Amino acid sequence: MEQIYKGKTKDVYRDTNGEIVLFFKDDMTGKDGVFDPGENQVGLTVEGSGLAGLKMTTYFFELLNKLEVPTHFISSDFDKNEMRVREVTTFGDGLEVICRYVATGSYYKRYGKYIEDGTKLDTPIVEFTLKDDERQDPVASKETLVALDLLNEEDYNTIAALTVRISDVVKEKLADKGLELYDIKLEFGRDKETNDILLIDEISGGNMRVFKEDENIHPLDIGNYLL
Amino acid sequence: MEQIYKGKTKDVYRDTNGEIVLFFKDDMTGKDGVFDPGENQVGLTVEGSGLAGLKMTTYFFELLNKLEVPTHFISSDFDKNEMRVREVTTFGDGLEVICRYVATGSYYKRYGKYIEDGTKLDTPIVEFTLKDDERQDPVASKETLVALDLLNEEDYNTIAALTVRISDVVKEKLADKGLELYDIKLEFGRDKETNDILLIDEISGGNMRVFKEDENIHPLDIGNYLL
Repeated sequence: MEQIYKGKTKDVYRDTNGEIVLFFKDDMTGKDGVFDPGENQVGLTVEGSGLAGLKMTTYFFELLNKLEVPTHFISSDFDKNEMRVREVTTFGDGLEVICRYVATGSYYKRYGKYIEDGTKLDTPIVEFTLKDDERQDPVASKETLVALDLLNEEDYNTIAALTVRISDVVKEKLADKGLELYDIKLEFGRDKETNDILLIDEISGGNMRVFKEDENIHPLDIGNYLL
Repeated sequence: MEQIYKGKTKDVYRDTNGEIVLFFKDDMTGKDGVFDPGENQVGLTVEGSGLAGLKMTTYFFELLNKLEVPTHFISSDFDKNEMRVREVTTFGDGLEVICRYVATGSYYKRYGKYIEDGTKLDTPIVEFTLKDDERQDPVASKETLVALDLLNEEDYNTIAALTVRISDVVKEKLADKGLELYDIKLEFGRDKETNDILLIDEISGGNMRVFKEDENIHPLDIGNYLL
């Protein structure tokens, strides 16, 4: 297999048959050894975290496929920490979309003048961010994403609607186990063959903030409740 | 007159008859002695800059009043560097709305991965920002402004439409003199009596970036072309 991308928490390969293979590493985003889904760098390495992420991602992607939400998922191999996926093109160098149910993290940092950390939002707030380490993944509006030629208005609306739909599924599954989803980060791409917009990357503890009452659940522990 | 607010470039008084009086100071926003409309602090003091700002503001507010665009303007006294205005309530501690015709300044800093400095935008881009020095005046979406309880959706749409209308007037007047408006920052409030949304504060060289061909025109020179 040929390596085509080296990511922070995953490496990407193209198999000899053309399929794309994601290898889930044991690296997590964070700072100084402390996990933080809002961080842009690898902050710690935890044995087994790659497999935990793959298992949760597989659980959610299989569920979403059943619900006919379009994802890039084909199959997983837990023995190899690998997930096979459809090949996609990204929007520019990648678009991450955050769905917020509770104001915290970077949202609180920006708007702390008017909102307390941990405030429940009446309706989920969707924010599109550009993958750009150098500029700390800036938030971008629909008008800006169109101006930057990354997508058109219809694409934006499709992705925003998919984001709420998918996040609501995750939120509900967590709620069934007594957990509360504060926010979640999703990634989208375009199917290289069909041009459809697909959910890509992963849905794992590393992409979300989850609480049980007032206790922040460690990303690697979420799976223990869920799976 | 009682001073009710001490601003970076203007002080605000309430007259004995209840009218609000803005005193235009000779302080300009910038850094290390260099003017920058995107800066959040006083960076330089230039004799005559207060009066220049008042004169341009008066010119535009009188023009906008003729065009039936609602502003807080009542009258100006050039001998005293003062402008009398209707009393307003602000949205929270103040909302500044930027209209961008060309990608530069903080917009280029955020989105420089995908756009070159100085790129003309196909349609003007409107950005709402919160006055919050500590958090560098964060940009906020419609959904966020509603969540922060600063305005409702109808208010947002009214302000966004007024912003483009007003900015287009300024742009056209500058174009008549061979100048190009790159971006402009406006401020809005609510009339304390009627509750109408009004353009407030000022429209002066200190709130806009103006170019003549490739040359950035100093804010104090814009009036020489215009008035």
